Amino acid sequence: MTELDSEFDTDTAVEALGGGRYRGDVSPRWAVFGGAPNGGYVVSLGLRALVEELGRPDAPTVTAQFLAPCEVGPIDVEVEVLRTGRRIGTAVARLIQGGEERVRVTGMLTDLDRASGLTHEDGGPPDLPPLEECVAPPDDAGLPPVIGRFDMRMDPSTVGWVVGRPSGTARIAGWVRFADGRPADSLALPTFADAFPPVAFNVLDELGWVPTLELTVHGRRRPVGGWLRGVFSSRFVVDGYHEEDGELWDDSDRLVAMSRQLALVRT
Amino acid sequence: MTELDSEFDTDTAVEALGGGRYRGDVSPRWAVFGGAPNGGYVVSLGLRALVEELGRPDAPTVTAQFLAPCEVGPIDVEVEVLRTGRRIGTAVARLIQGGEERVRVTGMLTDLDRASGLTHEDGGPPDLPPLEECVAPPDDAGLPPVIGRFDMRMDPSTVGWVVGRPSGTARIAGWVRFADGRPADSLALPTFADAFPPVAFNVLDELGWVPTLELTVHGRRRPVGGWLRGVFSSRFVVDGYHEEDGELWDDSDRLVAMSRQLALVRT
Repeated sequence: MTELDSEFDTDTAVEALGGGRYRGDVSPRWAVFGGAPNGGYVVSLGLRALVEELGRPDAPTVTAQFLAPCEVGPIDVEVEVLRTGRRIGTAVARLIQGGEERVRVTGMLTDLDRASGLTHEDGGPPDLPPLEECVAPPDDAGLPPVIGRFDMRMDPSTVGWVVGRPSGTARIAGWVRFADGRPADSLALPTFADAFPPVAFNVLDELGWVPTLELTVHGRRRPVGGWLRGVFSSRFVVDGYHEEDGELWDDSDRLVAMSRQLALVRT
Repeated sequence: MTELDSEFDTDTAVEALGGGRYRGDVSPRWAVFGGAPNGGYVVSLGLRALVEELGRPDAPTVTAQFLAPCEVGPIDVEVEVLRTGRRIGTAVARLIQGGEERVRVTGMLTDLDRASGLTHEDGGPPDLPPLEECVAPPDDAGLPPVIGRFDMRMDPSTVGWVVGRPSGTARIAGWVRFADGRPADSLALPTFADAFPPVAFNVLDELGWVPTLELTVHGRRRPVGGWLRGVFSSRFVVDGYHEEDGELWDDSDRLVAMSRQLALVRT
């Protein structure tokens, strides 16, 4: 398939209207329970406008504040360039529907091909069971559309909550790729960083609602290969607030992204 | 002492000019090597304007993009409120000197006294040697002014780089409080999150320059008591980019903040 055929590229496409203004379309394909689109998908849509405006493909850091839920349908993206340096360009995308800003996305973009300097790594990819021993979401018509966008296989020890037996440890790990085979790239990293179920499901007596307030994704390398491995965890759920920390690793056993979100836990 | 007498409150004070505009003054007291002010201090100054504008004291998440170094002297802070909800208010502060935006600060603020919901914690404060076995920075006139703002005692196993023997592990831990006795509060958390020396010093052959691109601080509780304990580490230095993750703990053994910054490593 070509990238143009992919669900992700089709659904994050933005049309440049000039003057930093873009127009996109929030697709129903990425809806979660309740009908709002997945937050990571929306961030990738905003990031695409930042990439087009700044002409740099990679986002060593992108932060989104979620102000109000997005809806399926047209979305305006207004980009303000804050600074364009030799190495880094910084810009803000306001994602607007019905005249109301729904999501604020601020990114610092670069070309990672030109990155140079010290490399010193202390850690490797998550220790996952082989793909064939991991579990895919059930083929259940009651699940929201976003489930169908991914081919996801989760470590069975981290998804006991699905059958009413939460592990007691706020951690979920597994394999993931786009269902249509579209390779992961820098633009897709925010989407993958928000693709797995909420880790809080493993410490709740019954499934709750886990709205994200803020999501920051550090795109550290361009992913290569087919599958990504993801591991997500939270250590501090305090008075209904919690962080969710993630790592994404590619087929070459390299870290490609770190993510952290602050989210609420509602039961 | 009263808070009004404190260095921190004096140096982060902002005067409201109306219409979301504030005026502050970057003090030379917080300068690091090279003369620019400490980044965390600048974020606290911007956060103070957000707190005044939104009327909420705590920042479960605040993110700063550092666009250009600030200078000692007057600074304009322009606040734009993005959304005011029942629970959370979100606003942006543009920190401007000489007509140029130097730092972009975006915060989601609340009143943590009203936070409620699940608490489930998996982790405790860092295992530090007793205060009297930890080391303070030397009383050296060659050190930058910011050193004098803190009473800091570092775990000796994490500061071998000071004497040319980096540990090889990008981790620094220790005790910290304001030198003048001003208690820590939510406003000061970004300052404390950026107070310790760069952890990258432990994996460099010689001291380098570690400019922060983006800093996100999650203020999870209001600190109580005198000393904070901080632990900061990086696991992935890749092509000159690295994350620095931090935790701050208060005297009651409670996590008060998590921080993550993306920074460059230059030698």
